[in-house]
Amino acid sequence: MEYQTPKFFHVMQYADAADGDTIDMVSGNPDWEPPTAIREGLHEYADGDADEFQYPPSDGLRPLREEIAARRNVDAGRVVVTNGTGEANYLGMARALDGDRGNEVVLIDPVYPYYPGKASMLGGETRLVAADRDGSLDTDATCEAINDDTALVVLNTPNNPTGAVYDLDAVEAVVETAADHDALVVVDEVYDHFDFSGEFESALTLDADNVIVTSGVSKSMAITGFRVGYAVFPPALVDAAKTRHMLVNVTTSRPAQQAVYEAYRATDPDYYADARDRLESRIETFTTALDAARADYTRPDGAFYVLARFDGFPGTMANVKTLIDEAGVAGMPGATFGTAREAWIRFALVTPRVEAAAERLVDYFAD
Amino acid sequence: MEYQTPKFFHVMQYADAADGDTIDMVSGNPDWEPPTAIREGLHEYADGDADEFQYPPSDGLRPLREEIAARRNVDAGRVVVTNGTGEANYLGMARALDGDRGNEVVLIDPVYPYYPGKASMLGGETRLVAADRDGSLDTDATCEAINDDTALVVLNTPNNPTGAVYDLDAVEAVVETAADHDALVVVDEVYDHFDFSGEFESALTLDADNVIVTSGVSKSMAITGFRVGYAVFPPALVDAAKTRHMLVNVTTSRPAQQAVYEAYRATDPDYYADARDRLESRIETFTTALDAARADYTRPDGAFYVLARFDGFPGTMANVKTLIDEAGVAGMPGATFGTAREAWIRFALVTPRVEAAAERLVDYFAD
Repeated sequence: MEYQTPKFFHVMQYADAADGDTIDMVSGNPDWEPPTAIREGLHEYADGDADEFQYPPSDGLRPLREEIAARRNVDAGRVVVTNGTGEANYLGMARALDGDRGNEVVLIDPVYPYYPGKASMLGGETRLVAADRDGSLDTDATCEAINDDTALVVLNTPNNPTGAVYDLDAVEAVVETAADHDALVVVDEVYDHFDFSGEFESALTLDADNVIVTSGVSKSMAITGFRVGYAVFPPALVDAAKTRHMLVNVTTSRPAQQAVYEAYRATDPDYYADARDRLESRIETFTTALDAARADYTRPDGAFYVLARFDGFPGTMANVKTLIDEAGVAGMPGATFGTAREAWIRFALVTPRVEAAAERLVDYFAD
Repeated sequence: MEYQTPKFFHVMQYADAADGDTIDMVSGNPDWEPPTAIREGLHEYADGDADEFQYPPSDGLRPLREEIAARRNVDAGRVVVTNGTGEANYLGMARALDGDRGNEVVLIDPVYPYYPGKASMLGGETRLVAADRDGSLDTDATCEAINDDTALVVLNTPNNPTGAVYDLDAVEAVVETAADHDALVVVDEVYDHFDFSGEFESALTLDADNVIVTSGVSKSMAITGFRVGYAVFPPALVDAAKTRHMLVNVTTSRPAQQAVYEAYRATDPDYYADARDRLESRIETFTTALDAARADYTRPDGAFYVLARFDGFPGTMANVKTLIDEAGVAGMPGATFGTAREAWIRFALVTPRVEAAAERLVDYFAD
């Protein structure tokens, strides 16, 4: 396993070094304020007793685990608090590849690049299945790809990068087929607070014993740097995951856990609704510009990315650099996300400058 | 890999449920105040810009990495900031077991139980080599255990549980023998601030290209719950470790990193010296009591544990429970730490009640 500087950093470095002003539509960091209770929670923690600076339980502070369990309507014993959704996915995927379920990992293309990276690190072989044209799950193709060598299917809904919100029926079909072949399904729901369709339903509602659901507050609370996520395991799978969590990380950083717990309790639903409204307005602005630029795209139902294809301007790394130099807008090359959208560019809408970026793209492509 | 509730929790639960007052000498949490700058750093961070709440660089905040690099006299490019020393050890051990170096892992008995746990999780086979009678490295036996199937040797100095501070010559002999067999050596120096002998020298001074040194501030800054540690890799090994760190954890929690950075800069050497003085005084008190109780022990040169053996009272789980019930002192059964000290009990001196514990042991054993 050799280190590759992720394309993400490569594009960011190029944009930083560029002569002109560049609008960053690369990174997936929310650009808005975290809940006030995050700041207050840290202040309160900082003044606490010295023994609150010591190891919390390995699987997470008990009130935080209980809060998560109540919100997800599961038993707290199934919840492991992790170092971000990233570790939650690692634990879930490891659970599938640990035993004798096989070594194939079915991923949906376009794919969030950490999934094949983790699969490979854990000894799995990735098998990519193309999503439907609009980014939704191609149920038939996905089920056909599952066989007795399949250990794991990873789904992500709302989806990065397509913005699709998967139909629960489609997820259920995949989960059932996976169960027939003794395979697990990890469903990454980290964008669960960014559903514009009103139709997102968690895979936890399936109550299936081969489904691991992961999520976190990096995006919903705008604190990607805190690293607080969680995984909800079926009862029979949770103990081995706790062991791995303990052996890798011992536990998740306590100041961050405590601040997140306070924010869960104190944050009004309006906070999340405001973020959704802000993003919907940006989506409207940005897709109107894409229409004017005669680009191909699917309007996202969730998350905060737009994949777009410009006529005669495939989304290669070279063209992404050209767009930085000549239009002052930085996106991500489609090849970052597997093979199905190599001609596309992903734009993240987590910048207050979406309107300016939209104007720049119109100027560049519509002339 | 099935979950085992660590013996640690088992003893703690038993002590909590006991009728009488029990002095906890089980857990390795410092019982003193963290540096003031940790609290101040958290307050300052809590009031920072929203963009400081987003992803730091995967390998750690740059000023923190540079601070660590300067203190350890290495290039900052070799440093990865990790989720505690636990993750640092995981990354170092994984680097050894990742390739085709073999699958044997040589560990020193008595052994910190996370090492064999991690080795097994990473597909390694543990081979235990007994330490010398006083806990120091048996150089000949260790070197003899290294062969072409050896991927890794893990050393811990100052040592938990023996309190030994290894001779740098002995470490060097092991490192050279490991190099002859293409094996790596992970040296866990997390107790580096707790050297009472004045003779501790870091394995980094060997400047060997098969040595990975791990450490952290959990113990030195009395913040085991923050999870800030680091690993220093040889230049040729660092990139793959960064990849694994990114794929497992993305990065280490930023509020904790920032507070530790502030504490590194603002904390006077007296803070660490006071902790050492406090522990030396406790060691004196406790070992005087062990003499009175006619126990066998080696006075620790470092770390903050004492291993003791009482005549006719082997350190089994049953006897540890008896000691809780009848003397009101909780220690750890020797079998927690491999096979070499099964008859012994480990007492952690990170409680302000060492004197009372010492009196209780004298009362119990000297009568």
